Amino acid sequence: MHKIHVQVSDPYTVSVGFDLLETLEFPRNTALIYDSNIPQATLDRLKEKVSLLIPLPAGEACKNFTVLADVLSKLAAANFTRDSVIVALGGGATSDLAGYAAASYLRGVKFINLPTTLLGMVDASVGGKTGINLPEGKNLVGAFWQPQSVHADLATLESLSPQVFKEGMAEMFKHNLLDPTATVSKFYELEDVRSEVFARELALSIGVKAHIVSIDPTEKHERAFLNFGHTLAHALEAVSKHQISHGEAVAYGMHYAAHLSRNMGGQDLTAKTLEFLRWMNPVPPPSRDFETLHGFMSRDKKADSEGIRFTLLKDHGEPYLARVPLTVQQESFRQFLQDV
Amino acid sequence: MHKIHVQVSDPYTVSVGFDLLETLEFPRNTALIYDSNIPQATLDRLKEKVSLLIPLPAGEACKNFTVLADVLSKLAAANFTRDSVIVALGGGATSDLAGYAAASYLRGVKFINLPTTLLGMVDASVGGKTGINLPEGKNLVGAFWQPQSVHADLATLESLSPQVFKEGMAEMFKHNLLDPTATVSKFYELEDVRSEVFARELALSIGVKAHIVSIDPTEKHERAFLNFGHTLAHALEAVSKHQISHGEAVAYGMHYAAHLSRNMGGQDLTAKTLEFLRWMNPVPPPSRDFETLHGFMSRDKKADSEGIRFTLLKDHGEPYLARVPLTVQQESFRQFLQDV
Repeated sequence: MHKIHVQVSDPYTVSVGFDLLETLEFPRNTALIYDSNIPQATLDRLKEKVSLLIPLPAGEACKNFTVLADVLSKLAAANFTRDSVIVALGGGATSDLAGYAAASYLRGVKFINLPTTLLGMVDASVGGKTGINLPEGKNLVGAFWQPQSVHADLATLESLSPQVFKEGMAEMFKHNLLDPTATVSKFYELEDVRSEVFARELALSIGVKAHIVSIDPTEKHERAFLNFGHTLAHALEAVSKHQISHGEAVAYGMHYAAHLSRNMGGQDLTAKTLEFLRWMNPVPPPSRDFETLHGFMSRDKKADSEGIRFTLLKDHGEPYLARVPLTVQQESFRQFLQDV
Repeated sequence: MHKIHVQVSDPYTVSVGFDLLETLEFPRNTALIYDSNIPQATLDRLKEKVSLLIPLPAGEACKNFTVLADVLSKLAAANFTRDSVIVALGGGATSDLAGYAAASYLRGVKFINLPTTLLGMVDASVGGKTGINLPEGKNLVGAFWQPQSVHADLATLESLSPQVFKEGMAEMFKHNLLDPTATVSKFYELEDVRSEVFARELALSIGVKAHIVSIDPTEKHERAFLNFGHTLAHALEAVSKHQISHGEAVAYGMHYAAHLSRNMGGQDLTAKTLEFLRWMNPVPPPSRDFETLHGFMSRDKKADSEGIRFTLLKDHGEPYLARVPLTVQQESFRQFLQDV
């Protein structure tokens, strides 16, 4: 088993290993909030250990005020007190909703996260971001709320579709690009989640995010590095009305960011990002029109009233934040379009 | 002007004085969220200084998910970014809702509070508690979110009804009981909000809460002292379906807590609390049945899975927390009923 220590104000540990769910124990007054698409066998390993079961609509469909209010009312109706615990079982959407419920119920109760997707393990499991969507946009409402512990049981990955698995690889590739100590390899071609090399790569990748989050828990500066590739990605997701997956959008976004980085004087990493993009084999970009996408980018919640700040790379492992002249954005987009 | 410094992790100042609203300036990207019952003259002093106006249903009617979701969508539709500011103008319910919106929007933006009721000034202005109600109970959902600053303009008190004014006096009386340095006086008979002695008593009272909150911002221990009188009060409010006002319920609750305190070996403060209760002149208690009220007290959100912890007084200014034997609760309630 690998353990990653996350040094935030209340430090906690992410455990990565096989069959971790078997040995977990919870206090009484524990609610298990789970994605209703979780395989029954996984649920069966936990349901006797908790006092309240709350199923959620699968995936993003749970991230709204209707579901949140319903979950909170169920906790109240069960007389859950301040010393109760909320456990999330599912992907990133499940932990976003369950974590936000934990942050909000009685102004905050304990939270334990059991991610069951690669994206949930590598991204949502570290950083304390929780929240829901508004009709006006994704993740516009939420709280920073750190878990007590995270247990990433690799056995849960075995039932994932290849497409959902690739979602997580896009964030692992991003963490690799941000990591000055990363060895260059096509780790993303690993497929056997039972292999020790897979567990080690996943733990390393979680460690990259844990390091950045420990420096900057509330996203004042360094944490924005994790936004690499996400400015265009969010615009592609928005313009497609979320028909393109997050991982595919991020793969496009990283390649665009690599063009931006080179045009702003950085090393040329476009061959790497293009190779990864081809491995992802995404749906075609939902828009090839710069003006349309730029409109969405300017409204991204990462923008401030001064406009967009991009995360760029001087070189592998050397991220920085910059505002980019509009002409450079346009020229980079033209180059990007030639590749995709 | 009086200034009270609140020493939480991001310290801020509560200003108390006359006509403070006139001189306030806000950054662009400021939303004013206000109780729609605010006198137009008060609103007129602020509305040109902000870029978005969001009226709320008056009083407690704003503290639900429907209003919260609507406020957050309005902020998003106006493209409010992370560097925007939310200003609350109204009583405690307004600042509870507006503060929770500030805590939640983009996982947290700046918050400034302009309380316009005595209760809002003396209680809701310090402590960072924000939130909404559930059908299952009051204040069951929320966040701790500290304001950037609080400006208590005494001019806004001049339009309050005597009953709403008394609401605030109940909390001021509670703070007086908790304060080891308090001089014993019937300050609550003060009526002229333009008098310097009134401003000074209010500033002292806010200071009592600021001191307790600075020791214990997230309610691990000392902050529960502020719960003096509130265990029975919440039960009375619940059993009456909130037909009794909070201040009246607290006046009853403090007198009951004084009986409990004496029966647990403390000084006899029941004459003081009874004198205050008579000044409050509340509606009759909505229930005189211990079993009924005890059921509500056991479900109070301040209870944990071990049951109710009461805040008691060894003497004026000497609060402590204790679990009280059921027989002592019953006997104290019997004595309380003889007085009311």
